Amino acid sequence: MSLDALEQLTDALRRLPGIGRRSAERMAVKLASEPEKLAAQLCHALEVVRRDVRFCQHCGALTSSDRDPCAYCTDGNRDANVLCVVEDPADIQSIEETGTFHGRYHVLLGRISPLRGEGPNDIRLRALIKRVRTEGIQEVVLALNTDLEGEATARFIAALLHERGVVVTQPAYGIPAGSGVRFADVVTLERALTGRREV
Amino acid sequence: MSLDALEQLTDALRRLPGIGRRSAERMAVKLASEPEKLAAQLCHALEVVRRDVRFCQHCGALTSSDRDPCAYCTDGNRDANVLCVVEDPADIQSIEETGTFHGRYHVLLGRISPLRGEGPNDIRLRALIKRVRTEGIQEVVLALNTDLEGEATARFIAALLHERGVVVTQPAYGIPAGSGVRFADVVTLERALTGRREV
Repeated sequence: MSLDALEQLTDALRRLPGIGRRSAERMAVKLASEPEKLAAQLCHALEVVRRDVRFCQHCGALTSSDRDPCAYCTDGNRDANVLCVVEDPADIQSIEETGTFHGRYHVLLGRISPLRGEGPNDIRLRALIKRVRTEGIQEVVLALNTDLEGEATARFIAALLHERGVVVTQPAYGIPAGSGVRFADVVTLERALTGRREV
Repeated sequence: MSLDALEQLTDALRRLPGIGRRSAERMAVKLASEPEKLAAQLCHALEVVRRDVRFCQHCGALTSSDRDPCAYCTDGNRDANVLCVVEDPADIQSIEETGTFHGRYHVLLGRISPLRGEGPNDIRLRALIKRVRTEGIQEVVLALNTDLEGEATARFIAALLHERGVVVTQPAYGIPAGSGVRFADVVTLERALTGRREV
């Protein structure tokens, strides 16, 4: 059976994070099997998101159309002197779940990626520099991905910010919780040893 | 940040098979972050599926609006004497991938479930009996789920079909490939031992 409509839906689902071919197929069949209960509802939810959700013009986090700047930027209880820089709005969620960061955010909406032809002007870097200059930021936490492009982007930003006399930090590298020396790759272990701490 | 639109989307995504809260949240944020590339495309694909995909009136498999009865029902190369009964259209996909079944299908679109108040008249059981009576079916393979309700539904259908002199079979129970005695639960192991075969 070659159902073009199902294949198109499978392709669209596969572009979501963490979804492989197999699960996309299962989801597509399920959606087609319950068109009114599942597909219609998902479609409606997507339309609402497209209409009501946008990037905060100030920090780049996701916010609703009627709340721009976003709740993070306008929350007086957050430390306005510390800025956490992330690649993606989804990263904010993960950091918030830890409950250990109480500053504000700046979302780059990307990273410097020569392979994808994305340079410093394709991410929200100019806005970051401007914020550091005008908002009296004292510390910038670079919480970018720890892969090659994320690292390179972090180095690039750190160099720009050092010139401006701001403290630039990164989350610690190391062995993840619930794992062990045996399971860590060479780079992780090297970083964990280099960054060893007295207990 | 409480973004109603994002939460609604997360809820809609969580209803898909195999998607937990965490992955639904990640997908929702990703969809909101790329509204035109991802959300619009998914929405469009869902609309096409709602418009073009339906259940084959004959066997209950998914098919396109302009092809009813479906490709399975009209494929002259398939053995019209053997019918494989499944709960869900997604099951067909899995069976087809094995390449070992060459008969036709009958999708119940459900199972008998007292807990959910679903009886014999809520699934495509009458249509199955009619097919067995009118299509000269010789064997019915009951490939239902192997949980309690699936088993009970299979027993119920088997009893009805035995009266009509048709051979009723089930796929073999046993230890799954890539596993072992050590990893099998009691019921599986009991079934595997009861159904042991000479090698």
